Amino acid sequence: MSSIQRRGESKRWSDVVIHAGVARWVEVADNPALDLRGQTRQVLAQIDATLQSLGAPRESLLQILVYLADLRAAADFNAEWDAWVPAGHAPVRACVQVGLSAGYLVEMVITAAVDGS
Amino acid sequence: MSSIQRRGESKRWSDVVIHAGVARWVEVADNPALDLRGQTRQVLAQIDATLQSLGAPRESLLQILVYLADLRAAADFNAEWDAWVPAGHAPVRACVQVGLSAGYLVEMVITAAVDGS
Amino acid sequence: MSSIQRRGESKRWSDVVIHAGVARWVEVADNPALDLRGQTRQVLAQIDATLQSLGAPRESLLQILVYLADLRAAADFNAEWDAWVPAGHAPVRACVQVGLSAGYLVEMVITAAVDGS
Repeated sequence: MSSIQRRGESKRWSDVVIHAGVARWVEVADNPALDLRGQTRQVLAQIDATLQSLGAPRESLLQILVYLADLRAAADFNAEWDAWVPAGHAPVRACVQVGLSAGYLVEMVITAAVDGS
Repeated sequence: MSSIQRRGESKRWSDVVIHAGVARWVEVADNPALDLRGQTRQVLAQIDATLQSLGAPRESLLQILVYLADLRAAADFNAEWDAWVPAGHAPVRACVQVGLSAGYLVEMVITAAVDGS
Repeated sequence: MSSIQRRGESKRWSDVVIHAGVARWVEVADNPALDLRGQTRQVLAQIDATLQSLGAPRESLLQILVYLADLRAAADFNAEWDAWVPAGHAPVRACVQVGLSAGYLVEMVITAAVDGS
């Protein structure tokens, strides 16, 4: 299926899948030993790196589903988010508490436009 | 990126993001003091209002991810949902229990077609 | 809205919704009496059946959101997943723990390309 592009394919998942002008990917912190603010900063930096590899600015983000391990820590998450999200061009966002793998405090499911128009 | 339209941009998120004929948005009840049936009715009315602003009917809904704070109350949620969902044109739906912000009993992540064809 | 196709419409939801070359659907095991490995095998087989009905191969999967009732059982889930996912063409995947309806141990939200290109 030539219309689908994949990046960073492991056995279990692809790091990014691109189809019909939309990129989808999932991020957790490379270093789950960090605290929530550290993991959040790292995830957001990883999103920036993926966007850069796609040639897409932060303003191309369409939707981010945020999973937090503890919603009582949402203020810490939001402090990092608010400093990062592009004013006037924010994605749609849902932020809920779910169970994450051991050590992980935040996970994000990202959708971005990559049609360059 | 001219192909992306955003509505109701706050600092933290956009209320609606439209790209490539698809609108994405997230709803919680404007009044979290309501009980689950009340919050559900309100969220569904808010979806109707957003659809109307997009010029799209309920039949344009593609997918709704439903987050409930307590899945044991799913019958109450479904009573409102069943009265609202357009017969023969229902979206795909997942309904799971997650942790929501204090007071909120239901949250929905909505995807709808807005290409008017 | 002629550009939207729906399959298996019940009152409450559609089994599959197709729009703009993308199919969206949700799967739980037909038999929730099975254990996690059994439910996972069944869900993956149901995904295969839906893909076949769409004329799309496993390689057309774009994203799968996996909800597990107990993330401590992720190894059992992954054993089935790893045997099924198409090497080199895996979808993006998030796997988190949420509350599911009684008996259900795994639920998946699937996005696939169906534009045949």
